Amino acid sequence: MTDKQTQQQELQQQERKAERHKARQQKVKAGVDAKIAAAQEEKGILLVLTGNGKGKSTAGFGTVARAVGHGKKAAVVQFIKGTWECGERTLLEGAGVEFHVMGTGFTWETQDKAKDTAAAEAAWAAAETLLKDPSVDLLLLDELTYMVSYHYLELARVLDALRNRPPMQHVVVTGRACHRDIIELADTVSEVQPIKHAFEAGIKAQPGFDY
Amino acid sequence: MTDKQTQQQELQQQERKAERHKARQQKVKAGVDAKIAAAQEEKGILLVLTGNGKGKSTAGFGTVARAVGHGKKAAVVQFIKGTWECGERTLLEGAGVEFHVMGTGFTWETQDKAKDTAAAEAAWAAAETLLKDPSVDLLLLDELTYMVSYHYLELARVLDALRNRPPMQHVVVTGRACHRDIIELADTVSEVQPIKHAFEAGIKAQPGFDY
Repeated sequence: MTDKQTQQQELQQQERKAERHKARQQKVKAGVDAKIAAAQEEKGILLVLTGNGKGKSTAGFGTVARAVGHGKKAAVVQFIKGTWECGERTLLEGAGVEFHVMGTGFTWETQDKAKDTAAAEAAWAAAETLLKDPSVDLLLLDELTYMVSYHYLELARVLDALRNRPPMQHVVVTGRACHRDIIELADTVSEVQPIKHAFEAGIKAQPGFDY
Repeated sequence: MTDKQTQQQELQQQERKAERHKARQQKVKAGVDAKIAAAQEEKGILLVLTGNGKGKSTAGFGTVARAVGHGKKAAVVQFIKGTWECGERTLLEGAGVEFHVMGTGFTWETQDKAKDTAAAEAAWAAAETLLKDPSVDLLLLDELTYMVSYHYLELARVLDALRNRPPMQHVVVTGRACHRDIIELADTVSEVQPIKHAFEAGIKAQPGFDY
């Protein structure tokens, strides 16, 4: 076979490869387009980010950043707040996001159930007000799940307020071990699972990254 | 038993409960404190957010918002960019974050492998420059995983650049099906798994929430 013949064969093979790639991608596009055409309903989404992995609250705050970037009104209620400063808050409050932070640290820091319950109630009162306000496009209830699993808040009250919120209001709930009834009520649920974590390998939590 | 006796018994029971709660929380606190004491190393973290669930990119952008809130320098390279506008970008660019966006849409939109490869190369060139710049505290490589799994970028080049970056630089890689060698290199890996998704129930992707 001459060099020219070899070259021609290679070219033909490359063309066939490109055609096959195009055919495969056309099939993917057809599938995606059909799904987009079928999805026509608009409504406020209840998104739950649960599981033991890193990234739940961060994704919640990312959703707030996205909403603000679109000129939407967003609010945040943080149900467990360490004593560390929180970088997201600085940026987002500057962009007009309303923040309510539960007045105690992690529950294992306070070791006082009555005090924790009172703090949870106060934070939940702020959440309930926001869950009735149709001008709030997006509400992040950060670490809400623990309030239910530690019995600081009654599940029924939480479900009622979520269910009766303005129909176009999006809500994001984060935290480990989300109660199955909240998962049942949610439209979208992601479980963040830890594959590995730097902290377990002796690496310190670092400002501007971990908090 | 008189009312007073009953009352006293109830009070004692409550006190015992509070004591038990305190003891349990003290144990949790001791465990957390010991872990914090053990974790003393500081270094640039490679965080991988993978899996098929919603929230990977959003957590990536949330990490960028956090860094910016702490006055850190952050940059973003987006490897797959739809034709939709991105709310996060508006907010974060306003806060001084450098953005590089791959010049094509989803790969199933273009259906042209040569064009996609060229676009991936151009975006990767920007990433490589940022991965050599110690003034960049945090770099988000959004949807990088697809560039490797679709063979638009060579795995070895990606690994080399990640491995040889400035020692204090944090990098976040997002996208489905992250290559096992990148997971191996990472310090922290979370897998976001879909439990359910509103889109599958016929609900439209909505601006300010989904994009």
